Amino acid sequence: MALIVQKFGGTSVADIHRIQNVANRVVKTHKQGNDVVVILSAMAGITDHLINLANEAAKKPDRRELDVLLATGEQTTAALLAMMLKGMGHRAQSLMGHQAEVITDCEYGNARILEIGTDRIRRLLADRNIVVVAGFQGTDIKGNITTLGRGGSDTSAVAIAAALKADVCEIYTDVDGIYTADPNICPKARKISEISYDEMLNMASLGAKVLQIRSVGFAKKYNIPVHVRSSFSEEEGTMVVQEESVQEQLVVSGVTHDLDQARITLKKVPDQPGIAAKIFSPIAESGILVDMIIQNTRATGQTDLTFTVPKSDYEKAMEIEKKIAEEIGAEEVFGDPNIAKVSVIGVGMKNHSGVASLMFNALSRENINIIMISTSEIRISCVIEEKYAELAVRVLHTSFGLDRED
Amino acid sequence: MALIVQKFGGTSVADIHRIQNVANRVVKTHKQGNDVVVILSAMAGITDHLINLANEAAKKPDRRELDVLLATGEQTTAALLAMMLKGMGHRAQSLMGHQAEVITDCEYGNARILEIGTDRIRRLLADRNIVVVAGFQGTDIKGNITTLGRGGSDTSAVAIAAALKADVCEIYTDVDGIYTADPNICPKARKISEISYDEMLNMASLGAKVLQIRSVGFAKKYNIPVHVRSSFSEEEGTMVVQEESVQEQLVVSGVTHDLDQARITLKKVPDQPGIAAKIFSPIAESGILVDMIIQNTRATGQTDLTFTVPKSDYEKAMEIEKKIAEEIGAEEVFGDPNIAKVSVIGVGMKNHSGVASLMFNALSRENINIIMISTSEIRISCVIEEKYAELAVRVLHTSFGLDRED
Repeated sequence: MALIVQKFGGTSVADIHRIQNVANRVVKTHKQGNDVVVILSAMAGITDHLINLANEAAKKPDRRELDVLLATGEQTTAALLAMMLKGMGHRAQSLMGHQAEVITDCEYGNARILEIGTDRIRRLLADRNIVVVAGFQGTDIKGNITTLGRGGSDTSAVAIAAALKADVCEIYTDVDGIYTADPNICPKARKISEISYDEMLNMASLGAKVLQIRSVGFAKKYNIPVHVRSSFSEEEGTMVVQEESVQEQLVVSGVTHDLDQARITLKKVPDQPGIAAKIFSPIAESGILVDMIIQNTRATGQTDLTFTVPKSDYEKAMEIEKKIAEEIGAEEVFGDPNIAKVSVIGVGMKNHSGVASLMFNALSRENINIIMISTSEIRISCVIEEKYAELAVRVLHTSFGLDRED
Repeated sequence: MALIVQKFGGTSVADIHRIQNVANRVVKTHKQGNDVVVILSAMAGITDHLINLANEAAKKPDRRELDVLLATGEQTTAALLAMMLKGMGHRAQSLMGHQAEVITDCEYGNARILEIGTDRIRRLLADRNIVVVAGFQGTDIKGNITTLGRGGSDTSAVAIAAALKADVCEIYTDVDGIYTADPNICPKARKISEISYDEMLNMASLGAKVLQIRSVGFAKKYNIPVHVRSSFSEEEGTMVVQEESVQEQLVVSGVTHDLDQARITLKKVPDQPGIAAKIFSPIAESGILVDMIIQNTRATGQTDLTFTVPKSDYEKAMEIEKKIAEEIGAEEVFGDPNIAKVSVIGVGMKNHSGVASLMFNALSRENINIIMISTSEIRISCVIEEKYAELAVRVLHTSFGLDRED
């Protein structure tokens, strides 16, 4: 008997038929004698539909009111699941953010959870209710409806699991776990049975897109085991746990790639204090996210500065930087939207030297030119030409001994 | 400068374009220096859509969860209007039922308002906000979401107007006021400029279908002037006010008709105590609403019993009564689904005798046979053959001097 939090994403509740599938799974867990708290997302596509409505209503929809609007998506699925469970003869009750006492700050659209009151949930569980909480939403202390930002239901789930000291937080999604690489381009990719929070944090930010990054931080902070698994199969997925709990410690746990990158270089930038701010402030102001930044100092008091932006923002960023280059007297701006970032991730590399050189050698053997390099404690990323991305992933996957044996 | 509550129904907020129309009207009232509280229904059709979803989710959807689901309809329109008003440069804020402190009992699906806390609304008004309240919904004292039943947004509006001691409660709808008869069948029908609460109560229940009946009771109790008017025109509509305030007191204010009636007669029912309960309990249990009931005593210790039900329930009710008739030893059950009810309504008839005979004579002159009669203090209703309904309305309209002069 355990306390289990189960979170189902938008594709898992996309229609009544799939919600029925969720209900069956929840009931099965409950019948095994477990206490079950279910966190739901909105039906797939609904949030986008509501955002479109909001954009019709106002050029720049007010953030408070946008949250009120968006919160209806999860309210709908939570009510539907709860009535379905009751229709099946089980005790169940839906709770909205304010009823579940998910207290957040008042940063509408991207609120942070401050506190979760668990009294009401615990009382319902004690009466053998299946508790269905609308994900993604909370309330500030004044009673305004807030939302946690895209993928916020993952954060709701982990935070509620933490507040309840749940035994596990299960994240049901449309993939069956975390893989050592994208199986679509790397046929020998293996499902990872256990991975550490830190590795997952690096995976998520690099495009593995399975778990919302903020929720992983939460899970790490409160040490909540997260089980990422498929809502369409019974198979075990991937457990995200403390580093110390991971049984099989590989040097590198996975290889990720990100094709949504474009590179921009400012050549011969005067090497003066404040120059970087001048280059990046207008980019930030127009809402463009800069990923990697690299600066090569030249001997001449000038420097070359290269950074990456999402492909969709490439034209806009180039335009901005061309103006900036003139203002600050840089020689030239050039760029390339046809690049990719490949990364190897693993807590093991903290204790093993030579990971970087193994990576560079592997790429070099295939004549793949490395354009940019960036590293963190447990990750090495290389920007390469886009056309080599898939080859690079396969080569690195083999080189670091990740290939499935069969 | 006044405090004005404006309520807009489903057709007035059916899409973004119409919500824009609502926004313009609200802003106009606000710009004249008035405090404005807006109550909204869900977009036309949405509530039915949600009910269909619920019926897919469960055979008999749990009432608590159904309310959670339905409440999303008004949440959506309230958020959209508030963001639109803000987008137009005005201060505005949406409030859901629990935020507006609309406290109800916990009769899900048909909750009654117990109390309305006005602090938050008053504070927002003091800051010159346009306050947009989601209609139809409230919260019980435990914080569960409740809804007020079909047409409940009218009740929300009048109740909030009462709590705020508003100067007027304007109900915007797709008709431009209350008419002396249905203009579709009575071309000489006039718009009524003022009508008493009691007359309106009788109008509404007889099928004028403009104002939810419970809201009229509320308005009467707290003496809130209700202005029923069109959201698509600037014209004045109909004021529903205290009897004493009505300027022009006619004997009869209007003629209504109801085609959704079917008649069932049980012949030679043994005249014993408890027999009526035996006849009507099974009808009530199957959710069929009985309107008129008439009993003619025979000299023989037997009685004939006639009653009316909605046309859609006729077959079901006949089936039930045939069984009952056998059980209790009634001679025969027969019925007629092709009937109509025409009524004349007016507080004036309290002080004028002869209204009934004028009505019966008028119908008789046209050879319209009266099948059933029922009366209240300010209303006389006759059941006639359905095919004569329109003729009867026109004849009565003329006989009671209601025809438009032009």
